[in-house]
Amino acid sequence: MPKAQLTISSKNYSSWSLRGWLICKLAGLAIDEVHVSLDDPGQRAELLLLSPSFLVPALIDEDAKIWDTWAIAEYLNEKYPEAGLFPADRIARAHCRSICGEMHSGFHNLRSALPMNLKARYAGFKVWAGAQPDIERILAIWGECLAKHGGPFLFGAKPTVADAMYAPVCMRFYTYDVPIDAPAAAYCRTIMDWAPMKEWIAAAKAEPEEIEELDVEF
Amino acid sequence: MPKAQLTISSKNYSSWSLRGWLICKLAGLAIDEVHVSLDDPGQRAELLLLSPSFLVPALIDEDAKIWDTWAIAEYLNEKYPEAGLFPADRIARAHCRSICGEMHSGFHNLRSALPMNLKARYAGFKVWAGAQPDIERILAIWGECLAKHGGPFLFGAKPTVADAMYAPVCMRFYTYDVPIDAPAAAYCRTIMDWAPMKEWIAAAKAEPEEIEELDVEF
Repeated sequence: MPKAQLTISSKNYSSWSLRGWLICKLAGLAIDEVHVSLDDPGQRAELLLLSPSFLVPALIDEDAKIWDTWAIAEYLNEKYPEAGLFPADRIARAHCRSICGEMHSGFHNLRSALPMNLKARYAGFKVWAGAQPDIERILAIWGECLAKHGGPFLFGAKPTVADAMYAPVCMRFYTYDVPIDAPAAAYCRTIMDWAPMKEWIAAAKAEPEEIEELDVEF
Repeated sequence: MPKAQLTISSKNYSSWSLRGWLICKLAGLAIDEVHVSLDDPGQRAELLLLSPSFLVPALIDEDAKIWDTWAIAEYLNEKYPEAGLFPADRIARAHCRSICGEMHSGFHNLRSALPMNLKARYAGFKVWAGAQPDIERILAIWGECLAKHGGPFLFGAKPTVADAMYAPVCMRFYTYDVPIDAPAAAYCRTIMDWAPMKEWIAAAKAEPEEIEELDVEF
């Protein structure tokens, strides 16, 4: 049986690639990474075979092809129920999926104003006022989860899909020096110290400039 | 046990309200509808109790509160597995969730250029060119599903969450007189003849003008 294939783009810029990759790690799925440049017309035909929507990440596992981050999470949750991708408690699981949904469908102002860029750090960056309500809503989401489940991850001792969904936000808050409250700062440190995140960040920093690009989905 | 509560906004304009309501119908969940006006400051405090993100739809069922359409679908799929909210076959299910994901996170140009408005019909409407790639992608998604599963719904004889996700698009294509291919036209007729859709459309047309509003999520 060949290993599953995860198609991703830049590790420095592509926040959705990061989310999908973290979810595969959470599931314990062994993957071969396929790197594509979304801006390279020569690679678009190849990408279409891997991802019908041209979006990353896309997962090919045995005979299944899945080209959406949340869909990948639900697929892997069904295949590896013991991995605990979502919280075990049904109320917490409904809460977890609700905040995954907010990230998946929203926060467009944050995503366009503060694109992920793991190599960069802009001290004192002036955040566009239009992104401030998104930042405040995210801090409220984190604050409620951390208070309810005791941290250090959003739903307690172990990371879930929600942490994969919000991990790129931690990196944006760091890159753009966004003022955040103490529980949020502690949470961001937890995410940055999480072993798969350290592995991804190191790879992003080692990525040659020529394959960098802006993420179509931010 | 009190009935579940689904918070929605305008039946004429709110496409996400429609999706969540159709998903509850698919699951066979008996609901009380709670109607809120997203534009009315006096209702915002009340809405916050029902939906922490201020977004609709939001479902309160026993002790669970869920405020995202896809999260509602996954919650109800876990609670009513026999309802067949997603296709029974795992490959088809992964495909179904992938196209749900495309709708949930994307098609922003279509959503802003052609907002849902069930009461209206604009013959010969000039569609903004920026929305054309979204329209083409949606026709490709439908074409593939209908060819693979034989219609009349996207995954065969019975409607799934994917049909709830794309139902508002059928209504937009009708309202704005968008040229579409024959399989897509047949699919749109299927959706418009689907009993819950007919019930929703009739209610939308009976909605008094004063509670109408634009949908925050389109």
